[in-house]
Amino acid sequence: MTDTIRISVDAMGGDKGPRVVFHGASLALTAHPDTRFIFHGRKGDLDPLLEQFPDLKPVSTIRHCDNVIAMDDKPSSALRKGKGNSSMWAALQSVKDGEADVAVSGGNTGALMAMATFCLRPMAGISRPAIAAIWPTLRSNIIVLDVGATVGGDSRQLVDFSILGAALARALFDQQKPTVGLLNVGTEEVKGLESVRDAGRMLADASGAGFVYHGFVEGDDIGKGTVDVVVTEGFAGNIALKTAEGTARQVSTYVSNALRSSLLSRIGALIAGSALKALKQRLDPRTVNGGVFLGLNGVVIKSHGGTDEIGFRSALALAYEMARGRLIEKVAEGMQQFPAPTAPSSPNPVEPEAKPA
Amino acid sequence: MTDTIRISVDAMGGDKGPRVVFHGASLALTAHPDTRFIFHGRKGDLDPLLEQFPDLKPVSTIRHCDNVIAMDDKPSSALRKGKGNSSMWAALQSVKDGEADVAVSGGNTGALMAMATFCLRPMAGISRPAIAAIWPTLRSNIIVLDVGATVGGDSRQLVDFSILGAALARALFDQQKPTVGLLNVGTEEVKGLESVRDAGRMLADASGAGFVYHGFVEGDDIGKGTVDVVVTEGFAGNIALKTAEGTARQVSTYVSNALRSSLLSRIGALIAGSALKALKQRLDPRTVNGGVFLGLNGVVIKSHGGTDEIGFRSALALAYEMARGRLIEKVAEGMQQFPAPTAPSSPNPVEPEAKPA
Repeated sequence: MTDTIRISVDAMGGDKGPRVVFHGASLALTAHPDTRFIFHGRKGDLDPLLEQFPDLKPVSTIRHCDNVIAMDDKPSSALRKGKGNSSMWAALQSVKDGEADVAVSGGNTGALMAMATFCLRPMAGISRPAIAAIWPTLRSNIIVLDVGATVGGDSRQLVDFSILGAALARALFDQQKPTVGLLNVGTEEVKGLESVRDAGRMLADASGAGFVYHGFVEGDDIGKGTVDVVVTEGFAGNIALKTAEGTARQVSTYVSNALRSSLLSRIGALIAGSALKALKQRLDPRTVNGGVFLGLNGVVIKSHGGTDEIGFRSALALAYEMARGRLIEKVAEGMQQFPAPTAPSSPNPVEPEAKPA
Repeated sequence: MTDTIRISVDAMGGDKGPRVVFHGASLALTAHPDTRFIFHGRKGDLDPLLEQFPDLKPVSTIRHCDNVIAMDDKPSSALRKGKGNSSMWAALQSVKDGEADVAVSGGNTGALMAMATFCLRPMAGISRPAIAAIWPTLRSNIIVLDVGATVGGDSRQLVDFSILGAALARALFDQQKPTVGLLNVGTEEVKGLESVRDAGRMLADASGAGFVYHGFVEGDDIGKGTVDVVVTEGFAGNIALKTAEGTARQVSTYVSNALRSSLLSRIGALIAGSALKALKQRLDPRTVNGGVFLGLNGVVIKSHGGTDEIGFRSALALAYEMARGRLIEKVAEGMQQFPAPTAPSSPNPVEPEAKPA
């Protein structure tokens, strides 16, 4: 890593095109002037746009790519047609080649995971990559993984996810020994899926190696912030993430409707204005935008495809923090402290099963 | 069924004892004066308490039982020691004997499911019972199942749950053809667990038989109310339910804190008072209290063990609606319209894996 943080950006990814990407990068640069950008995409589109962001221009490089992966391309066909010559692939290649510290794309999640796995390869000892979400809770932000890279997942994968999630917590939150909980349907030893119970035993034996194993947690422990890292397989994790998003939107709608329901409530809302504005910001899903791909030889952030410049700025800020926090080194340290009992490294690209957000 | 609705109540179940049970029953009676109660429990405890509810006394019978199932009894030991002579068992036996239309208990979920399965037996053609939650959404209440009776669950079980959930929607919401969605990690055909994809194909073939199959839904579709019935296996279902509860509590806490954060926000909240009070009621988890056990030859409602009289009233109100809506008949109709391709009826008691709420 150099003194600056070098972010490689798929400028063509996302539903809203490169203008949102540049605008978000410009906002991110204000917060962290020591950022350098490599934008990958169609030079003819990007060059004139960059002119509109004079602050961004001196710290940015544009790399031409002909191809763009569509949001509805299947992972396998995206890999076939986009390997080597798409903006998504090129963004990853910059990380592989060591000219960038982290890659960010707002493109198709499945394609990005397939390409990232193929390009960067899983770390030695990690069988499958995971997607981690940064989850705001009543206590502080925590990490929840996997939120959609794998479906199913055996006990060893859950242990891998614990190591990866703990390393992310150490990198992002500067915690020495984050607490790790396994998501389950009950906190009693006898309950839940066999894979989860087995993983619980393995983690209990190894607790203390880079993290403290807390035990089982339930769905409502996520919002409470009971632990720093919540580990689950991707089916339940994705459903938990989406259900929480839906519930947050639902409750926010109830609040807005209540405050608009009568003249008095409108007056009250007007007077409470700044507090409600702060609340609205707190609930804004754009402020926590970015699924982190973990378990690969390189850091990749998936931004929500439909987000605007505010959301893209958040994804870039997350990428910056991850690089500054030396995520990859911390994962490697975690792996050393907790050697894999079985370590079938899979060099094959995997198709993720779900979008993280 | 007689003209009145006869509810059999485990008066000893729940963390707060029989006073809460009687108080809740008294409130439920006010809403539905055509209710009759059979309370099962220790006569020495119950008789003097009933004296304090003069409205309840003429419509209530007390049946003595020596034993009480503890909240921490394991299902197997509860079944061994409580079969035949506990208040929980007796409450179920009243349904089996036809002297009550529905049973309600605030006791230990695992024990209740084991006993209910043993006492009432699964319906012909239904392999395993499920626990259904009534879930408030932005559109209307919907049904989500299974929220914790089974863990895992193959495609046939998901089809069974669809039939059961659709019957519950017909009984509770008076819908002729409720829409059914399978919870998955993406809406594309290729995604998700094999059992879910297989169930999707089976439901698509049979759509129209008592319900309309909508297709896959994601976690955020629950809060939107995209479909009337959301079907999943118990692990993901329980995690979705608990995660939503946690998120609702989290957002409500943000709202309360925001409105208490400054003098102006407090004044605003005071002025908006009645709208905020209505909002608070809407978010009160006691207003939707009761997991419905589906797939047995009898209707059983599990009330939250830690609830108060308001919560217990809600569970009794749900029991009343279920009996009035002729749930069991509607499930039987559903089964006829959608004959089971494989129907391995399991006569063995099953231990549920999770508490529903």
